[in-house]
Amino acid sequence: MKDIGTADIIYVFDLLGTFVFAVSGWLLASKKKLDFFGASVIAFITAIGGGTIRDLLIGNTPVGWTKDMNVLIAIVLGIFLGSILKPVFERLRKTMFLFDSIGIGLFTVIGVEKTLEAGLNPIVAIMMGTISAVFGGVLRDILVNEIPLIFRSEIYATVCFGGGVLYWVLSAVQLNYELSLLITVLLIIVVRILAVRNNWSFRTIR
Amino acid sequence: MKDIGTADIIYVFDLLGTFVFAVSGWLLASKKKLDFFGASVIAFITAIGGGTIRDLLIGNTPVGWTKDMNVLIAIVLGIFLGSILKPVFERLRKTMFLFDSIGIGLFTVIGVEKTLEAGLNPIVAIMMGTISAVFGGVLRDILVNEIPLIFRSEIYATVCFGGGVLYWVLSAVQLNYELSLLITVLLIIVVRILAVRNNWSFRTIR
Amino acid sequence: MKDIGTADIIYVFDLLGTFVFAVSGWLLASKKKLDFFGASVIAFITAIGGGTIRDLLIGNTPVGWTKDMNVLIAIVLGIFLGSILKPVFERLRKTMFLFDSIGIGLFTVIGVEKTLEAGLNPIVAIMMGTISAVFGGVLRDILVNEIPLIFRSEIYATVCFGGGVLYWVLSAVQLNYELSLLITVLLIIVVRILAVRNNWSFRTIR
Repeated sequence: MKDIGTADIIYVFDLLGTFVFAVSGWLLASKKKLDFFGASVIAFITAIGGGTIRDLLIGNTPVGWTKDMNVLIAIVLGIFLGSILKPVFERLRKTMFLFDSIGIGLFTVIGVEKTLEAGLNPIVAIMMGTISAVFGGVLRDILVNEIPLIFRSEIYATVCFGGGVLYWVLSAVQLNYELSLLITVLLIIVVRILAVRNNWSFRTIR
Repeated sequence: MKDIGTADIIYVFDLLGTFVFAVSGWLLASKKKLDFFGASVIAFITAIGGGTIRDLLIGNTPVGWTKDMNVLIAIVLGIFLGSILKPVFERLRKTMFLFDSIGIGLFTVIGVEKTLEAGLNPIVAIMMGTISAVFGGVLRDILVNEIPLIFRSEIYATVCFGGGVLYWVLSAVQLNYELSLLITVLLIIVVRILAVRNNWSFRTIR
Repeated sequence: MKDIGTADIIYVFDLLGTFVFAVSGWLLASKKKLDFFGASVIAFITAIGGGTIRDLLIGNTPVGWTKDMNVLIAIVLGIFLGSILKPVFERLRKTMFLFDSIGIGLFTVIGVEKTLEAGLNPIVAIMMGTISAVFGGVLRDILVNEIPLIFRSEIYATVCFGGGVLYWVLSAVQLNYELSLLITVLLIIVVRILAVRNNWSFRTIR
């Protein structure tokens, strides 16, 4: 009998995050009058864009998603369910937001881990964690011809960066891996929820 | 005496496709009030963008065009002839469309082949074939600040994806390589022509 | 006692160029109503974008800046000083333009060198030199949703390309390395200044 370990749990949430990103990419695309194919590409890029850019920058090629069919399945499911259950997803906004936050938290931590494994330093690892979490959204916005959302509002990326710093500090003080991960992801979720609730944002620079 | 084999014929059509892509990039750029340099960059990126993104994703670096001067020569020729023979190319629209379709077909098949050679699975190979064929145009559209054409209309990319699937099926049933290639490229050409003739497109999703 | 060699001087100017690029990215971003984080990302990408694309294309990964903390420090300094000394930098326009030109000249030469070291041919090396110098600005413009400046005006990139050709010719005739470098960078600076002074540009193609 096989035990379910932390790695399995992370993997499942990673796929869940990918799924949610695909759904959110699809929902945005459907507002832009794209055809089915175009919207699928946007959903796909939203889901794997951040990890792909990280993999390219740290030289981890072929990039991750080309080697794991489950990622593709999660995305196809996201597109399929996004297209037939659009009203449901729009009603489940809070649930989606929660999964999205879990996804972002996990993408950040996974990005930090992979970069440290590649032998790069912690600052770069934290940047790569942030890139993993937010660049799918950046590419999505560029493709539909908007100034990327994260450059204009919300403290989205800053939360990831902060989470990355926290995660690295916790690892550096040798805290148990599972606990570091849990604390980091919880922090990212809580801060994001507070940020959206209270409409936090940095002021636009003059 | 050296025989002319299938590989040579593919190579020649690959260069022809590159040439046609460069011309089409140039013609689009010339409508955008770009200077000579800017239009050349657009032509260049249109011609090599798809293959470059595929090479980066599958870890085939330095990317292809950096190792084959004939590709650069085909592009420079495309820019040169595009700039002095603009009216001719505009009159030869049907011929151009034919070469463009041949180019797309070949780029798809070549992309599938290279990805399988890199040890990745058939689904990813078909995606990479499609990326090879269409992402030059996507980058071109992003650079001139438009929502990429393939996201909005025509079934361009879907045809490539379908061609990639067909090609893989034909290879999987061990059909002769030359025949698989020919059938795939012919299918892509025919479907594209029918699509444009009959104004086929997917409906915009609501 | 350690002598200060040419390599050290180049390295210092390389960092200075990076710093100036970060400042200029920041100043542009501050006109676009981006928040602090967004403007920092723009500054960062402006500074390292060209070298990163070159490194990806020639397969030099992990890309350069991930392995040199001084580059990150130069960028953080650029962002910090850009944000507190904005009026000063706007008054120092001529000094900034000079450092920017030195940066471009050095980025071109360094790009040519790295590509030749990767075993690629001189034409590709000159293209990579130009990409190193100008693509940070291209990415910056795409991110703030403008048609990249270099595609529309100024002979910016052409100067880099010309500088790359000159540098390669000088190396090919075995001229002393330091002298080749100096002549190339000076040429790029002088031609750029003349170009801006006299409002040189290529005509828009019809």
